[in-house]
Parts: sequence; structure tokens; C-alpha cells
Amino acid sequence: MPLKTRLTERLGLAHPVVSAPMAGAGGGALAAAVSAAGGLGLIGGGYGDAEWLEREFAAAGNQRVGCGFITWSMARAPALLDLALAHRPAALMLSFGDPRPFAGRIREARAMLVCQVQTMRHVREALEAGAEIIVAQGSEAGGHGARRATLTLVPEVADLLARESPQTLLLAAGGIADGRGLAAALMLGADGVLMGSRFWASREALVHPNLQAAAVAADGDHTVRTSTIDIARRLDWPKPFDIRVLVNGFVARWHGREAELAAAIEEEAPRYAAASASGDAEGAGIVVGEATGLIADVPPAGEIVTRIVAEAEALLARRAPAFVAPS
Amino acid sequence: MPLKTRLTERLGLAHPVVSAPMAGAGGGALAAAVSAAGGLGLIGGGYGDAEWLEREFAAAGNQRVGCGFITWSMARAPALLDLALAHRPAALMLSFGDPRPFAGRIREARAMLVCQVQTMRHVREALEAGAEIIVAQGSEAGGHGARRATLTLVPEVADLLARESPQTLLLAAGGIADGRGLAAALMLGADGVLMGSRFWASREALVHPNLQAAAVAADGDHTVRTSTIDIARRLDWPKPFDIRVLVNGFVARWHGREAELAAAIEEEAPRYAAASASGDAEGAGIVVGEATGLIADVPPAGEIVTRIVAEAEALLARRAPAFVAPS
Repeated sequence: MPLKTRLTERLGLAHPVVSAPMAGAGGGALAAAVSAAGGLGLIGGGYGDAEWLEREFAAAGNQRVGCGFITWSMARAPALLDLALAHRPAALMLSFGDPRPFAGRIREARAMLVCQVQTMRHVREALEAGAEIIVAQGSEAGGHGARRATLTLVPEVADLLARESPQTLLLAAGGIADGRGLAAALMLGADGVLMGSRFWASREALVHPNLQAAAVAADGDHTVRTSTIDIARRLDWPKPFDIRVLVNGFVARWHGREAELAAAIEEEAPRYAAASASGDAEGAGIVVGEATGLIADVPPAGEIVTRIVAEAEALLARRAPAFVAPS
Repeated sequence: MPLKTRLTERLGLAHPVVSAPMAGAGGGALAAAVSAAGGLGLIGGGYGDAEWLEREFAAAGNQRVGCGFITWSMARAPALLDLALAHRPAALMLSFGDPRPFAGRIREARAMLVCQVQTMRHVREALEAGAEIIVAQGSEAGGHGARRATLTLVPEVADLLARESPQTLLLAAGGIADGRGLAAALMLGADGVLMGSRFWASREALVHPNLQAAAVAADGDHTVRTSTIDIARRLDWPKPFDIRVLVNGFVARWHGREAELAAAIEEEAPRYAAASASGDAEGAGIVVGEATGLIADVPPAGEIVTRIVAEAEALLARRAPAFVAPS
């Protein structure tokens, strides 16, 4: 049975499940697999590599997918936005920066504008940009984010939208990796979920199997928000954003010693790059969130969608009403 | 209609709602009001003031209530535990420290042992102590806590309990202040919720109305985990715990300048104490979590219970099954 929400109706999806546009990890094969399973896959626009982005749109084939950008990075190479829009994406998501300068071009291209927010102030910017979908992302998420938790941010954003922009849809992101999280998100007022870590640990993700294995083995206590990964990659992320990763050898060595890492960058940047290329789980960034403690395998992405939706359906249709005892 | 879970059955409650044993704020009147409304109220055992604790047990009258301790603090004055157990509390909750040394006395007194945990390692300790109820507390909570988020910690603990100790009950804490949060917690696998901030902003809480007004006015972006409040109170909190409070003048001035605050403590401690006593909302600690953005009033605690349960019931009985479309 399909799960029916405002999101599935507005976008013509079978299921209210969207894959996060993970830089580097979320390519065309993953996005296409999520869409083929009835959700919506988003290709990760990454950090300005037009060739990579063209290749990944090609890899998505004829599946209807979307694309997401790191706004402050795309703003330095705005031709990437045109490249993505030329592929007529179903949705164009902007995260981590002011979406307003780009909203007009996205609207003209008839892509649905999706804005990811981490604070209530971000919601105001997203509404000014004319976002049709807002993704409220909590701190428990893997990858870049900020400090608010999903559990409080989603209902607070839902209240604001109900008052000021009731037609805007709301997705929950951060910490959701199974049907329990999807069912909880719908109870909080979301119209669906956007999941990163769960799809990062899928067969189609562009992630080295060694890193996926390390994430599967870890519990949720062993992630941290840090800037060490971005220092090692010489990425100039603006405040208030940092990145949540698994605590491995690299992070344990440098977290809290950021100035020393920066001072040793001529040695450490190539070492980090080599570790990433070779799938060295102690030296590379393992970009998953707290939900890594809920992830026990690396199945095909389509199976993830099917499994999560079935679990959520059982909870919503049978378990939820059973809590309310007959009078 | 009552909300029926394993918690309500095991404890004979009408509703799966427990009030947090907030030091200073959670006295006998609040605990009794929550219990009278069909939940379970817990008196906050605080930092070693036996006279205060006796008075608050007296204030609870004949209502069946429980009591909660800050474990590391109570360990320095363990006679407090005997004092509390002499009142035959329905439940005795231990948070922030190793519960194992105290479990035997609690069991002998036939109080139900409740252990609050912030990490998976804490869960192991709680199970060794023989906890009958585990409270999984996320970082979004007001007051003391640690780093994991409720949304991932609750299902991960639920999975561990299902494997290793299926008879142990699970409560969700941190970021829950309305029926949406309660319904979400049940979907995540909890048997009920423990709420602090929502009851902190109640008529019966021992909190100055100025501080409650500041919390009602704030959105959820304006809290932070900090150690400044504990430095100002000369409380020697162990790692990894710190306290989430509203960002007011005091916190804005000292957060990130903890060493300077410690150096100025002879002046600052009395100043902080005076601000707390007079209800100075810029100088005192305003101990609420991210859920402050969901709190818009200061009603009687019993009304809070009734309202939250009614909202959760509507979500669980009607909204949840409506997401699952007929095939």
C-alpha cells in the first residue's frame, strides 16, 4: 500500500521518501534507484565539478530525479545551477546559504524549489525565496548541518508554516533511517522525510565499501560534529555549519586541535585525500549521522525505500490506533 | 480516552506521561498535579537539601508520586536516598552517574528503579543495575544532559532492549512538549514520555514567572548547552554533562569564556544567585530545552497532561491510519 501525504500528492510519488543530495556519495544511480522505488532521488551537486554532475545526470537515465546544491559553494560557480536546470530536474534543493538569489531561475525552469533549513531564521529566508518544500534538518544528521534537533525543529517549523504559509510542504531530515523515524516524522507534522545516512549505506551510493562497513559496525554514540574534515579538504565552510562524521582515527586525532591541523595542512591534506581514495576507514571522513546506530546493512536503495515504507505503514495503520484504548 | 501502553499498564496510570524531577523547579505540588491528572509526577531530589525534599514530599500530600536524583550529587549525601525511600515513592529515578551502587536499596524499598541514560554505554549500566524503566534523554532537553538526540537514541535503545531485556520499559525524554512529540515517541518505540520544559512552564513549577515569560517568548533557536550556569552555581558537574538553557544576557556574556567566569567567580556567583532569587531573566539561568519554541503558555500542570494526551490520541487514532491509503 502507498503512504499518502501532501508530498506524494503534490509530486506524484508513491512514497514520501526523498534521498539527500549527498556531495560525492549521491550520484545518478542512487537517485534513480530511489525514484524507481517510488520516492524521489536527488543528485548531490557537490563542490563545483561540472563534469561529475553531467556524468551523474546521465547515470540517472530517464528516471525523474532532482538535484541539490550547497548554496554557498554553487554561488561561486553559478553555471552549475544552469547545468542542473537544463536536465529539467523534478526538484532543485538549496542548502547552507541564502537561497533568494537563485529562486527566480529555478522557478523559471519550473523545477520545484526545495530549501533545507537548520534554524527558524532560515525558514524566513526560504519563505521569502518562495520555497515550495522546506526540509527541516536536525543536528543528528550526517554531513553538514547545525545545532537544532529534528524532534523540536520539525513541529516548530510546522507551526510557523501553518500560520504563515500553509501551502508550503515540510520534510523532516536528520536521524531518520527506518520506518519508526518516518512514522514519527509524520506525527510531528512533516509531509515526508529526506534521508542521507540510510542511503549513504546503500549499494548504489558512491562510497567505498570499507567506509560503509565501519558505519554499519558503529553505534550512534560514535559520531561527532566537527570541522576537521573540512579543514583537511580545504573547504571553507561558513558558520554555523559543521559536519557530522563517525569518530575514527583521523577525527580522534584532530578534533579539538583544529589550529594544529590547519598548521599541518600541507602534509595532512594529501594524506586525507589518499585515505579517502583508498577507502581507509581510519583516515578518511565517514559521513554518517547518529542514525548509523540504526543501520545494519548495505542493501540496494530500492529495498531501503520498500522496507522503510512497509515498517511505517504497519506502525501508522495498526500500532498507532492500538495505543488509544476503547472507552 | 486513556492512552494505553506498557507503562500505563505496569504502573497503573491513565496516561504515559511522567514529569521530570527538575532540581529546584519540580516540587511536590507539580508532581502531585501530574499524578492527579493521570500521569506520574517526580519530585526533583536536587543537590542535597534534605529540608527542601521533606517539605516537597509533604506538599505532594497523599498523591502517589516518585522522586529523582542527580546520582553523582546524591552519592555525596546518600542519606537523601533513604529520606526519599521512606516516603515510599512509586518510582525512584537516577540520572547522571552510575546507578549500580544504589539499586539494591531502591529494590528493597520496592520503588520502581528508573534510570535515565544519554548514551548506549549508560544503557548497559542501567541494565546491570536492574532498571525497570530506562529514560532515553536526548540533547535537545532542557537542563543537564549530553550529546545524543532523542530521535536516534530512543529507537537504538529500543532495539537493544528488544534483544537483551524486553521486559524493561522505555521512556523518551528531550524535546517533547506536545501531543505530536508524545505520538512520535510512541512510534519510535517508547512506552511513554518524560517531559521537563513543558512542566517547568506550568503554574505549579517552582520557577519565577519572569523566567517562564522569557521562555514562552523565545523560539527554539535560542537555547544552548553550556557549563556557565554550573560554574556560576559552583556545581562540579562531571563530564560529559552540561546544561541546556535559554541564551540570555548572562549566557551571552560568558559562554565560550568559561575560564574568565571561573576567575571572576567571587563576584559572579553572588550576582548569579541574586539574579535567580529576584527572577532577573537576563541574569539567572532559564533552564528550558529546544522545546521552548513549542511552549506558548503557563497553564496548570494537569491541563498540560490533558491537552497533550488529547492531541496525541487524535494523531494516533485518526491521523496516523489516514496516511495509509486503501489499496
